[in-house]
Amino acid sequence: MRQVFQQELREVQDRLIAISELVTISIENAVRAFNESDVAIAEGVIENDTRIDVLTRALDELAINILARQQPVARDLRTVVSALRISASLERMGDMAEHIAQLARYRFPERAVPKGLRSTFAEMGRLDVEISRKLTEMLRNQDVDIAEEILTDDDRVDDLHVAVFEKVLGDSWKGEATATVDATLASRYHERFADHAVSIAKKVQYLATGDWAPEADDNAL
Amino acid sequence: MRQVFQQELREVQDRLIAISELVTISIENAVRAFNESDVAIAEGVIENDTRIDVLTRALDELAINILARQQPVARDLRTVVSALRISASLERMGDMAEHIAQLARYRFPERAVPKGLRSTFAEMGRLDVEISRKLTEMLRNQDVDIAEEILTDDDRVDDLHVAVFEKVLGDSWKGEATATVDATLASRYHERFADHAVSIAKKVQYLATGDWAPEADDNAL
Repeated sequence: MRQVFQQELREVQDRLIAISELVTISIENAVRAFNESDVAIAEGVIENDTRIDVLTRALDELAINILARQQPVARDLRTVVSALRISASLERMGDMAEHIAQLARYRFPERAVPKGLRSTFAEMGRLDVEISRKLTEMLRNQDVDIAEEILTDDDRVDDLHVAVFEKVLGDSWKGEATATVDATLASRYHERFADHAVSIAKKVQYLATGDWAPEADDNAL
Repeated sequence: MRQVFQQELREVQDRLIAISELVTISIENAVRAFNESDVAIAEGVIENDTRIDVLTRALDELAINILARQQPVARDLRTVVSALRISASLERMGDMAEHIAQLARYRFPERAVPKGLRSTFAEMGRLDVEISRKLTEMLRNQDVDIAEEILTDDDRVDDLHVAVFEKVLGDSWKGEATATVDATLASRYHERFADHAVSIAKKVQYLATGDWAPEADDNAL
């Protein structure tokens, strides 16, 4: 029984890693679709998100099935419940990638990334991809030190998010309303993507210490 | 044992109702703070959200504690796991109310609600409050028919969300970038608030039928 249970926990972990890899592909492509106005890549991201949704749902069913059959306690219970929460966050990261891709598609053949903010969004996108890769590595190796790197990267994403608003609300901003809307939404989606990764990283980190992670903060601007 | 367990499930339900009531107070005040630029009320919403966060976290601990001690199966297990998810959605509804209040505070003494969109936001806010009240009623009476009303109200919120973008991206829009940013974010927060309520309503509805609710859709615009 115990051995079966350990195999099942391993299966849960493997599936989280697989979903995290799909999320990484989504954010890589979403960032490229958004920065290069590539509508074919954007369509691919939107399709990929359906797969992420199906896989997270199947993972949730497996986790609940394990709760019902194995009735885990203590650390094992926390591991399974955390898997449910990590799954929910990965699903939202996929949604944020999809939203970034949708912005590219809505504006096509125009560029969704507003003038004057190209390098800012390129850097935000690079960081989101980096964070997503690190998250997969963290889930794979249970290496809690990576959590600190993800937190540092997220701080930089937050700084860039603030920089986008400073730019858009500054005197030099000549963007039309469309550019202002796109900058606002795209920046929020990039920032929320990183927030969800932080939330997962903290859960993995705290699981190692046997405590619960507090939810990450999120601000209106 | 069974009787204790039923009492505990009742306690979980009572706490969900109590949190839902706090969320309703938050959205009522957030909507008022936003529409009337009342910074004192906005501060109250931000404070109230800390209480919601503490209560949802305590509820999560209780639910996990029940899983560990009572090892529920079948419908009871689904009820407890659903409580965890409903708690997460209520927590996010509180965050959305807080964000709407934060917008009021950032812009004070200016009005955060952009000119030309006052009646739209008044209606969106009214619907969010209505949805939140219905959600509490649904949690209290397990009345699944209310779910349909919430879905209908959410459809109207979605229509208003689209109307905000049509306005902001239309030729008649004379708003500064600040107004465009505020309209974009405020509309998204109002819409997400309703989405989370739909997500909860579906969970309660599906629990009654013994199935899982699919996650609600969310679009980039």
